[in-house]
Amino acid sequence: MTTSTTSSVHPRPAADVASWDHEADVVVAGYGVAGASAAIEAARAGADVLVLERTSGWGGAAALAGGFIYLGGGTALQRACGFEDSPATMQAFLTAALGPGVDGAKIEAYCQGSVEHYDWLVDCGVVFKPEFFGEPGWESVGDEGLMYSGGENAAPFTAVATPAPRGHVPQMANKRAGEKSGGYMLMKPLAETVAALGVRAEHDVRVQTLVTDPDGRVVGVIAKQYGQEIAVRARRGVVLATGSFAYNDQMVQSFAPLMAGRPGSAIEEHDGISIRMGQAVGADLAHMDAAEVAIHCDPQLMVRGILVNGRGQRFVPEDTYPGRIGQLALFQQDNQVFLVVDEAGYAAAAASPTATRHLRRKPTWVCETVAELEAEMGLVAGALESTVELYNRYAVTGEDPLLGKKAEWVKPLTGPFAAIDLRGATSGFTLGGLRTTVDSEVLHVSGEPIPGLFAAGRCTAGISAGGYASGASLGDGSFFGRRAGRSAAGTRTAAGTSTAAHPRAEAEPSLG
Amino acid sequence: MTTSTTSSVHPRPAADVASWDHEADVVVAGYGVAGASAAIEAARAGADVLVLERTSGWGGAAALAGGFIYLGGGTALQRACGFEDSPATMQAFLTAALGPGVDGAKIEAYCQGSVEHYDWLVDCGVVFKPEFFGEPGWESVGDEGLMYSGGENAAPFTAVATPAPRGHVPQMANKRAGEKSGGYMLMKPLAETVAALGVRAEHDVRVQTLVTDPDGRVVGVIAKQYGQEIAVRARRGVVLATGSFAYNDQMVQSFAPLMAGRPGSAIEEHDGISIRMGQAVGADLAHMDAAEVAIHCDPQLMVRGILVNGRGQRFVPEDTYPGRIGQLALFQQDNQVFLVVDEAGYAAAAASPTATRHLRRKPTWVCETVAELEAEMGLVAGALESTVELYNRYAVTGEDPLLGKKAEWVKPLTGPFAAIDLRGATSGFTLGGLRTTVDSEVLHVSGEPIPGLFAAGRCTAGISAGGYASGASLGDGSFFGRRAGRSAAGTRTAAGTSTAAHPRAEAEPSLG
Repeated sequence: MTTSTTSSVHPRPAADVASWDHEADVVVAGYGVAGASAAIEAARAGADVLVLERTSGWGGAAALAGGFIYLGGGTALQRACGFEDSPATMQAFLTAALGPGVDGAKIEAYCQGSVEHYDWLVDCGVVFKPEFFGEPGWESVGDEGLMYSGGENAAPFTAVATPAPRGHVPQMANKRAGEKSGGYMLMKPLAETVAALGVRAEHDVRVQTLVTDPDGRVVGVIAKQYGQEIAVRARRGVVLATGSFAYNDQMVQSFAPLMAGRPGSAIEEHDGISIRMGQAVGADLAHMDAAEVAIHCDPQLMVRGILVNGRGQRFVPEDTYPGRIGQLALFQQDNQVFLVVDEAGYAAAAASPTATRHLRRKPTWVCETVAELEAEMGLVAGALESTVELYNRYAVTGEDPLLGKKAEWVKPLTGPFAAIDLRGATSGFTLGGLRTTVDSEVLHVSGEPIPGLFAAGRCTAGISAGGYASGASLGDGSFFGRRAGRSAAGTRTAAGTSTAAHPRAEAEPSLG
Repeated sequence: MTTSTTSSVHPRPAADVASWDHEADVVVAGYGVAGASAAIEAARAGADVLVLERTSGWGGAAALAGGFIYLGGGTALQRACGFEDSPATMQAFLTAALGPGVDGAKIEAYCQGSVEHYDWLVDCGVVFKPEFFGEPGWESVGDEGLMYSGGENAAPFTAVATPAPRGHVPQMANKRAGEKSGGYMLMKPLAETVAALGVRAEHDVRVQTLVTDPDGRVVGVIAKQYGQEIAVRARRGVVLATGSFAYNDQMVQSFAPLMAGRPGSAIEEHDGISIRMGQAVGADLAHMDAAEVAIHCDPQLMVRGILVNGRGQRFVPEDTYPGRIGQLALFQQDNQVFLVVDEAGYAAAAASPTATRHLRRKPTWVCETVAELEAEMGLVAGALESTVELYNRYAVTGEDPLLGKKAEWVKPLTGPFAAIDLRGATSGFTLGGLRTTVDSEVLHVSGEPIPGLFAAGRCTAGISAGGYASGASLGDGSFFGRRAGRSAAGTRTAAGTSTAAHPRAEAEPSLG
């Protein structure tokens, strides 16, 4: 219990804490993928670990996610599926696809450590089926373990780096029955590993603010449990891992206003509290405008048509990562997008055994000619006609010089035609957050780590600076979550480059 | 002098300050438009004011700017030039043009107070010539005082609010000789007003961090002058007004990476230090990705042609505010833009007496046919042809249904044709910064004002959330600068809505 009766994000001086309700070497806030990974590594480093979770169970947004983990550089799964990859190739792709403005050191560490991270996940009990799913889709339809998940095999990235699929999906026991997501099959073994290590967890705990000593070192957390304020002492360090700010309306309005009113693929607990707590002790932020954006349409349908904006113009190769389509739609096309297909393409998509059933959409308009269709759609007469003419002119030979859609999906569009209204059909979650080192130390605006404070997952700016690939969040959340756990426990990663520069983060806690 | 020998952005406890080198009721950091406006109002409210300026003179970025001040709602200048306007019309325009995500309370206060603010500037000695400049351009060519400066009279905003010009430009004594900018003619009378009020100024002073008392109240500033650290006590409040972070590479990379390497219209002193100092005491931020973007081409040339992206597609009405063209080019078209004109249009622009001479550009390519031109430009064969065909189809009757360019600038393009390469021809400055109230109190991440801390100008998120209009920065910098001065002096604005909610900001300083 503390001397204060009201909670606030203002940091609490340790001197104001009358007594500690809980104590541990490492206190982890949030039991999603980043928190679980941090807990495992901190415990393995010999720390006594306590996880504080707002809900009544483990899982976070991760357990509800599709389960992609973005890994590469030549993982055992990639090799088993017959794909070559290297850390350098992966790094070239991520630098292009997730930028501009990526944290180069973080991307490099992530790519260099990716093979080992895959092995670590397998060692924790995560199962990946060595089978590749190569059809357009948001997720594999079966329980295949590997898939393209960032547009690696589509223009313009094929010119940047040799394509390799890096979307690693934990195998589901009974996916077609819809029982559990790949994210659940990731979190279950991680949570079991956490438990087997003797890590304690307190549930129904909402963290409120950090406790600091007079030197500014973070030595604990103030939280609320069952309406009561509790004080939790962290002898070595606090790891913040409570997720994004997608459901904090004020923050979304201030930092990512295009996302206002369209959160998705995140859970309502994503209220940005970790970011707020960090800011209150002077933590820096990065890429607060970045967001993952989904477009709600079956990729099988999209590849067979052309996507046009409100002026009837194409803007994206329709066979790329659908999340890239969503981002371009929202950020560059004012959320004004239509899919134009012909009857043959629509029928083929509907008949596809790998269609994403819940994202199938019925035509909004059907017409015999493009001229009739553009009139129905409210487009300028002639605009869509000239777009279709240019597309068809090259499609007869399977080419798409304008945007580089792969030949297998390029066919002239012939009547009858249909269009699907995708205006506003986007949702997603925020990617920006606390600025951290490659060792998951939270950086003060001075540029130095804040002693005792670590963070990972979507409350941090991770490997993305704006662009996205499915699996980047579970990927950097688990990868840098592990590093947060090790750093908080006082064990530094060999690959860590910030160790020498920031000796303070290695010092023993001032409140032992 | 202080007990510390090294400076850092970490806030300094007042107890660590051995002695104060300077003292004042209100300490203003930065002698640009926001700082000068703050100093005037604080002094008029009876406060003893000290301005700390990094350079050896007054002016800041403002004195080097074109001088637009975005004002409206029916100013004396608007009325003298025969234009009707109202605060509601102005508010509707700004909400659409500067959004999404604008601070509604700030926009409302700004529009409601705009007429009074114009009168205040005139009362300070700023001269506006009651003449309207109606030609396309970045600035008026002569010394006219009023101009459209945000696309008010162009699509799509004509459908949002009745157009009124709101770019107010101080009259230059000898503009054609290029002696002094409109910004200088704004700053000179403001600086004279500051001096006449007995405000002191210390020059060659670089602020480093804030001094706080044990309750978190800001009570002073640590700075460097001639290499020595000095401590400056603020008995009532500190006003931060040192400008944007356009020249802070790390911040640009973290928050606005598309602006990396292209700062412009700002001065190198814009290093983000006020934002850093605020963050270090837990201040919140907003709209850190927002930026003003200029495109380096004479608007007289642009209106007579068509602007196309790297796919040969039009994307903007060429007769809108050129800053909007710049923003769309950089943020939505990947900085890939070309201007296509015909010989007649090029010659007419070159002959225009209102051309912006230093932004005239020679054709990059000249060809007899569009087919030849698109080949020279490296565009997909047929792409530009279909764009020109569609444009010409409507242009014969003076229409532009695709983008709504005004009839006076719509003419069919006929050969010979020229294209100007505008790829990468953008630059600008950042618009995001500290989150403040309508009374220019700096907000803590808790949502409450930080006692004793105020800010205005481009170190704050002002009326823009992303969009821009020329004059918005000198406009909100001076407007909310005045409020910062009044708030710091302890005098609240009648229009202030946050007064009652934040009684702490009115409290007497704890170190009197």
